Amino acid sequence: MTFTDLKLTNAFFRDNFIGPKSDRPTVTVMRDGFAEVTLQTGRQHSRPGNMVSGPTQMALADTVAYVTIFTKLGITPMAVTSSLNVSFLRPCIGPSMRAEGTLVKLGQTLGVTDVRIFGEGRDAPSAIATVTYALPK
Amino acid sequence: MTFTDLKLTNAFFRDNFIGPKSDRPTVTVMRDGFAEVTLQTGRQHSRPGNMVSGPTQMALADTVAYVTIFTKLGITPMAVTSSLNVSFLRPCIGPSMRAEGTLVKLGQTLGVTDVRIFGEGRDAPSAIATVTYALPK
Amino acid sequence: MTFTDLKLTNAFFRDNFIGPKSDRPTVTVMRDGFAEVTLQTGRQHSRPGNMVSGPTQMALADTVAYVTIFTKLGITPMAVTSSLNVSFLRPCIGPSMRAEGTLVKLGQTLGVTDVRIFGEGRDAPSAIATVTYALPK
Amino acid sequence: MTFTDLKLTNAFFRDNFIGPKSDRPTVTVMRDGFAEVTLQTGRQHSRPGNMVSGPTQMALADTVAYVTIFTKLGITPMAVTSSLNVSFLRPCIGPSMRAEGTLVKLGQTLGVTDVRIFGEGRDAPSAIATVTYALPK
Repeated sequence: MTFTDLKLTNAFFRDNFIGPKSDRPTVTVMRDGFAEVTLQTGRQHSRPGNMVSGPTQMALADTVAYVTIFTKLGITPMAVTSSLNVSFLRPCIGPSMRAEGTLVKLGQTLGVTDVRIFGEGRDAPSAIATVTYALPK
Repeated sequence: MTFTDLKLTNAFFRDNFIGPKSDRPTVTVMRDGFAEVTLQTGRQHSRPGNMVSGPTQMALADTVAYVTIFTKLGITPMAVTSSLNVSFLRPCIGPSMRAEGTLVKLGQTLGVTDVRIFGEGRDAPSAIATVTYALPK
Repeated sequence: MTFTDLKLTNAFFRDNFIGPKSDRPTVTVMRDGFAEVTLQTGRQHSRPGNMVSGPTQMALADTVAYVTIFTKLGITPMAVTSSLNVSFLRPCIGPSMRAEGTLVKLGQTLGVTDVRIFGEGRDAPSAIATVTYALPK
Repeated sequence: MTFTDLKLTNAFFRDNFIGPKSDRPTVTVMRDGFAEVTLQTGRQHSRPGNMVSGPTQMALADTVAYVTIFTKLGITPMAVTSSLNVSFLRPCIGPSMRAEGTLVKLGQTLGVTDVRIFGEGRDAPSAIATVTYALPK
């Protein structure tokens, strides 16, 4: 199957992630094995140096990987992150950012997603990550 | 030098990290090359399954590694995360959590910290991480 | 169960890994969830700077993690490495080296091992690694 | 500068890496920030299951990342691996394999390379890796 319903997916995040609304990303693209997620960044996402913080970038990487799994399995709440490896390459500057995820393997128990994070209007990624999700049976 | 002033370190986080107060960890232990940081977890830190979310755990890992650098160099705002690798091992259950960081290498340009995350009252870590910071010149 | 038979384990490596004998590590310690593996290093394991090469260290990390799985499941040839993250901290100097592995999680599908590598007679690790094995059903 | 001299680069590996000739990869492509390296695999590179072993794949990932640095800085023997993160996705089957590396960041002290490994004639990677080299001053 391929599941690419942006409306349902964004509703899932709205209903299930309880933090401040300003922390909730928007899923903007879903294709077979690919997703894009964006976030409007504010002062609460900054770190000294006026850059988007590492944890904000990691949270977005984690989310986009989750959504790439959804494109194959549908909304799968109990998929859980098994590991995340991120390298920060250059400052991430807002006021918006986006993450692109490409699923590079979907096995029976694990899904592995290659992620790139970009500050607003940038072509060079601020960070690259590999995110592995454990899939429910 | 060894810098272990909890009061000053917590004041630094209070003044520089602007997110909701409930997201701000408390630095509870600083020794030469070691730090412990705790967080009271709430609904906003949860994910489906009533567990503390991966991003919450990664943010705490990032913070405790930053503080292990401080124990050697003093408060160093412009130390920035270069890479973070985390493996999630078992559910992290609140209502509090802690991260322990041990600096395993401090070079001229990089500091590497071994991190363990624990849910409240647990002996077995919910996650282990290796966090590398790039040091300012 | 706990499987700690050094003789059988070393026989397994002797029979199954076909490379030059000088590349074959020796399993020296097996305990419940822990293993130590050593290698006599020679010119063929060196890189410019007269240090033990990164690939030699990674191979030893991979082996010691495999053996920590054996301590719980017995010899399990079809356990395969799922991911390996290594940070190199300081030069690894021979003429011998050792790797210590501690299993930090054994689930139904994955085993995660924390690894430290040491050059001869050193207390500070040359490298730390996290190695995840996928377990056969 | 851009350094893309395959002959000199292969001569460097021939002169500096002392292991068995059958372990020495061949650098087949060098472009600005990109490299491809190949290896003829034999029984000594196998693991149970008749697949190319993880350490063989990691060694090739390490080499191709080194060469991507060379494309920018020329032959730089004292660049050393700082960290390597690899995810194994599917079996790597010989009798040849190749690694492709793309340099995603070259800073003053670190170079980060995105690597993909492929078994003979495959389009889907057997492994993906992120390799960070520390650069000499």
